Amino acid sequence: MGYRVGIAGITGYTGVELVRLAASHPELEVVLGAAGASAGQPLSTSWPGLQGLTELDVESIDPERLAACDVVFLALPHGHAARLAPQLVDAGVLVVDLGADFRLRDPEAYARYYGLTHPCPERLPTAVYGLPELTRGQLAQARLIANPGCYPTAVTLAALPLVEAGLVSTPLVASCVSGVSGAGRSPGPRNIFCETHDSARPYGIAGAHRHTPEIEQNLGCQVVFSPHLVPMNRGMIATVHARLARPIAAAELQELYATRYADEPMVQMRQDAPGTADVRCSNRAHVHVALDAERATVTAVAVIDNLMKGAAGQAVQAMNVALGLPEGLGLPLHPVMI
Amino acid sequence: MGYRVGIAGITGYTGVELVRLAASHPELEVVLGAAGASAGQPLSTSWPGLQGLTELDVESIDPERLAACDVVFLALPHGHAARLAPQLVDAGVLVVDLGADFRLRDPEAYARYYGLTHPCPERLPTAVYGLPELTRGQLAQARLIANPGCYPTAVTLAALPLVEAGLVSTPLVASCVSGVSGAGRSPGPRNIFCETHDSARPYGIAGAHRHTPEIEQNLGCQVVFSPHLVPMNRGMIATVHARLARPIAAAELQELYATRYADEPMVQMRQDAPGTADVRCSNRAHVHVALDAERATVTAVAVIDNLMKGAAGQAVQAMNVALGLPEGLGLPLHPVMI
Amino acid sequence: MGYRVGIAGITGYTGVELVRLAASHPELEVVLGAAGASAGQPLSTSWPGLQGLTELDVESIDPERLAACDVVFLALPHGHAARLAPQLVDAGVLVVDLGADFRLRDPEAYARYYGLTHPCPERLPTAVYGLPELTRGQLAQARLIANPGCYPTAVTLAALPLVEAGLVSTPLVASCVSGVSGAGRSPGPRNIFCETHDSARPYGIAGAHRHTPEIEQNLGCQVVFSPHLVPMNRGMIATVHARLARPIAAAELQELYATRYADEPMVQMRQDAPGTADVRCSNRAHVHVALDAERATVTAVAVIDNLMKGAAGQAVQAMNVALGLPEGLGLPLHPVMI
Amino acid sequence: MGYRVGIAGITGYTGVELVRLAASHPELEVVLGAAGASAGQPLSTSWPGLQGLTELDVESIDPERLAACDVVFLALPHGHAARLAPQLVDAGVLVVDLGADFRLRDPEAYARYYGLTHPCPERLPTAVYGLPELTRGQLAQARLIANPGCYPTAVTLAALPLVEAGLVSTPLVASCVSGVSGAGRSPGPRNIFCETHDSARPYGIAGAHRHTPEIEQNLGCQVVFSPHLVPMNRGMIATVHARLARPIAAAELQELYATRYADEPMVQMRQDAPGTADVRCSNRAHVHVALDAERATVTAVAVIDNLMKGAAGQAVQAMNVALGLPEGLGLPLHPVMI
Repeated sequence: MGYRVGIAGITGYTGVELVRLAASHPELEVVLGAAGASAGQPLSTSWPGLQGLTELDVESIDPERLAACDVVFLALPHGHAARLAPQLVDAGVLVVDLGADFRLRDPEAYARYYGLTHPCPERLPTAVYGLPELTRGQLAQARLIANPGCYPTAVTLAALPLVEAGLVSTPLVASCVSGVSGAGRSPGPRNIFCETHDSARPYGIAGAHRHTPEIEQNLGCQVVFSPHLVPMNRGMIATVHARLARPIAAAELQELYATRYADEPMVQMRQDAPGTADVRCSNRAHVHVALDAERATVTAVAVIDNLMKGAAGQAVQAMNVALGLPEGLGLPLHPVMI
Repeated sequence: MGYRVGIAGITGYTGVELVRLAASHPELEVVLGAAGASAGQPLSTSWPGLQGLTELDVESIDPERLAACDVVFLALPHGHAARLAPQLVDAGVLVVDLGADFRLRDPEAYARYYGLTHPCPERLPTAVYGLPELTRGQLAQARLIANPGCYPTAVTLAALPLVEAGLVSTPLVASCVSGVSGAGRSPGPRNIFCETHDSARPYGIAGAHRHTPEIEQNLGCQVVFSPHLVPMNRGMIATVHARLARPIAAAELQELYATRYADEPMVQMRQDAPGTADVRCSNRAHVHVALDAERATVTAVAVIDNLMKGAAGQAVQAMNVALGLPEGLGLPLHPVMI
Repeated sequence: MGYRVGIAGITGYTGVELVRLAASHPELEVVLGAAGASAGQPLSTSWPGLQGLTELDVESIDPERLAACDVVFLALPHGHAARLAPQLVDAGVLVVDLGADFRLRDPEAYARYYGLTHPCPERLPTAVYGLPELTRGQLAQARLIANPGCYPTAVTLAALPLVEAGLVSTPLVASCVSGVSGAGRSPGPRNIFCETHDSARPYGIAGAHRHTPEIEQNLGCQVVFSPHLVPMNRGMIATVHARLARPIAAAELQELYATRYADEPMVQMRQDAPGTADVRCSNRAHVHVALDAERATVTAVAVIDNLMKGAAGQAVQAMNVALGLPEGLGLPLHPVMI
Repeated sequence: MGYRVGIAGITGYTGVELVRLAASHPELEVVLGAAGASAGQPLSTSWPGLQGLTELDVESIDPERLAACDVVFLALPHGHAARLAPQLVDAGVLVVDLGADFRLRDPEAYARYYGLTHPCPERLPTAVYGLPELTRGQLAQARLIANPGCYPTAVTLAALPLVEAGLVSTPLVASCVSGVSGAGRSPGPRNIFCETHDSARPYGIAGAHRHTPEIEQNLGCQVVFSPHLVPMNRGMIATVHARLARPIAAAELQELYATRYADEPMVQMRQDAPGTADVRCSNRAHVHVALDAERATVTAVAVIDNLMKGAAGQAVQAMNVALGLPEGLGLPLHPVMI
């Protein structure tokens, strides 16, 4: 009854979000939590809010222990998953990598943006990119799922209908804002309270950010990507600007999006501009599109919770598809709006 | 000794920021504070932090009382300044309007974006747009200064060197983030704590925001403008994306900006991407520009404090020029970085 | 199958939190949402994050419509529930009042603190105060539940074991901090973003706050109560200081608390000091107690989520008891720690 | 013309605040900035917001270089100042230590709370505690000033009139909230954004916090001290509860405070409860006192900016006194209320 789940990187923000999601998922039981540090301690030492809710002790990352699970989520710095995943897959484990190791089909792009020679390029063709709205058909057979990056998820959902319809003149301009949890739990200048609070800043602009090639791979076109860090824990906005290759009526534009996302359980079209609180702790994306006929440009917006649809929630969604479970099983849809 | 200053709209965020700036300006003395509400109360009733620092009582807005000042700052909702300014100017007062009434040279654009027939279109040609980096030469003779909007200030400073050099293919894409103080002190859905905190949202996209025509007037080209509200009190980022009309080398691009802003006391060029904390409570703008040669695009960033260089500080800067005082007199440059 | 639920005051923060909780409660179905304003609009107009998740339209508050429900939650300003509850109870509805009307047993205390003559003092003896940790035995028969205030919940849970053991010399000193959602959704000086953000303030000190008599009723002794508003959405800390009436050993003190709360599903004892993030979106309280032998004083801390254990979650917990359901049914325990 | 200032620990939050204050102080010039790390780099590398405003390079901490200054501020971890200060004082430098090394008159209390044998206990009697409201008379002759801790400043200002009047039955209960900048710039669990934001927590309760003996030394009585960390950059509240040793009328209580602080330039009495935004970036304290006659208790509140009156501002204030300058010279009084 249910799947035995292991999480590597369980003490990080994404890892502990997976613990929370698994707790309300009827088919998952977390039987193993591993991390690069804290091994030997109760998980509730790293996260005191879990006292009384879990008896799990953090283990060191041991492939053999992980291989005994049915499903393993890898929430590790890039480079680590590529060394772990092959043997887990070969042992019959369904592997969902929340890091970057299997996202890019081109190992040279990986080397360029991540500064590493890919440890197992021969596995790249076997990985399925886990954005159900783009790759649902392939996920049913997946044994190795590359969970999308948060920015690529948001940008892709915002722009996909436009691009698929061949409406745009490239490059697109994707300006994004992200909450701070995307910077992870390791302390540094991007996540210290006093220098982050009540301040906002761009970073990784002009093609420098590692999510650039992933975004371009998803959309099949050039995208100028400008991420901004803003002082909130969760939440992400992708505001994508596309020059129109040909005129389109406002109603036609709305119809294009409505049709594309009509059957998507995790995409809610919005007539008004959404905010990130509308999707806080929810696995849904809210998408809004507006025409600026005067400037022959479309502005498309997607908001997500970067830890949910942008990370842990999406991983569970893709896992559900791969396991043949209902796609939304165990996933919170109701936002924590306050 | 010094100038007698009146402030209409003194209880609002911009008004009370002017009070603070005037307190450390050696040539200004606030002798009159007026507002649409709170008349008859001490200013320190509206702002208890001022107890013991000011004896000023809030008055109702009376043109004759204001006309007795040397300088009047109007920090009022649009439409009000246009009815007050003419008689004040005619009485010899230097008027600085921090609202929108005299920013647009075209009264039809005003009518379209502000929903009002301009009350005194004949005065529009006499107003000087108060962005010293763009209009310093005209400010020396000004008697009616139209203080720029916050977004137009940031976007213009980011893009100006590019546009002046004829480097861009339009429309530009200006994606901006703003702190909440720009929404003013009247309560509403855009500034209630629980629905603003820990959340971000776009608004007024696709040409809808009132600052669009002002930005386009400054730059002389089309600009797709996407503002976002983020949970901080002060601070604004303009991230402007420009497709290049012709190739440019990275060093040439840096030189272009360095040269343009070499003598600007309120513009600091940055080699790294700036954050809004770098200019918190400072009247300076920090500007950064980066080339994405692969995508033939330039990304230019300006950060300002929206209440300082984006409102009250800029008003004092322009006033200084108009009065023949040193341009930076009394203006804080050191940021409150924490 | 399941209970038909009505919520009066559904558009407020507590009301919409009840909507979220009901959505994951297997025995509840919200069939009616009423509010003083917004009647006739979809609930998702007030809360766009609910688009696609609910078809509910907001109705005006109609006792007859509410009387057709099995359970009605009243999340209304004080005075309203006292006028609605009697007829609902008489119609067989289980009524849970999240306001203050039925909390104080003494109608004179009600009149003094709430400025109203109680509309139905004869019903006060029939109301059961809904703090299961204090009144579980009476809740099983309850038809009218007075859901505790947020501060009284936290202060009571912190101090109860001490007081029950007769260890304290009164008055106690309860210093509390609260997030801003406790101030409700109506805009005012206590919940405007820019004047709330990055600032903290005491209010209602020296016996002035309305929760004072409720706290004293729960504990049966005088309590000096000092609430503070701090810039966060959710979360509450009660830090209670008690002079010892007789010496106690540290181990004995810990044992006292451990024993008192051993069987409480919603109270987690902590050896370290808890923070409000440890209970964010969880219905649990975390309690910590420390002895300062040198000063013959005990400091006891309870943290709760003011919208959960401090309001909507506690209402569902008490309802579960009154309906004979498992006490924690449908209630989230895992915190949203990030 | 002016004093040559050195700052040791210039890259920390207190150090860089001193840089900002010195920039607007007419008699100070920072000629030397030293720090344990970052030596050899421009100060503006550590703090990019200072680009264009300072040419200072960070030096390593060299007593001989510091000895060439007129005034040296030591903003270092405890233990360091005690090793540096004697030789600087002997060289004729006015030394202001913003750390804890010279605050406690009793070296055994120092050893107990700071875990160090005091390096120069013979200097303790020569240090003057730099709280002008308490020790102004001694400051005029001071050559070694022990700048008070932030909590002791706030608690002392709140309680002093009560204690001096012999009105209280001890121990007092001082419950405080502090912004995060008090935790310093070194990253750790108390200052990482995602685990600090939107959360509050007590710490160091029940006599454990190092500021306890300093508070008790100032007030000459026992004080139960409960600090809380809340999610804001700056700001501190001390809410002090005192059981009355004898009855007092409300008017008499107000008069007591008004008289005690009548001539204090940095203390503003308030009839209403103050918030920390009222003193943000100001060197003033706002003090409020309220009688709870029913519970024979007084609640006294002081709010300060922990980096200003709680650290750097107070250091400049005390220095002004020691140098015979006007006490408020160069110190901002106007708060940054938004």
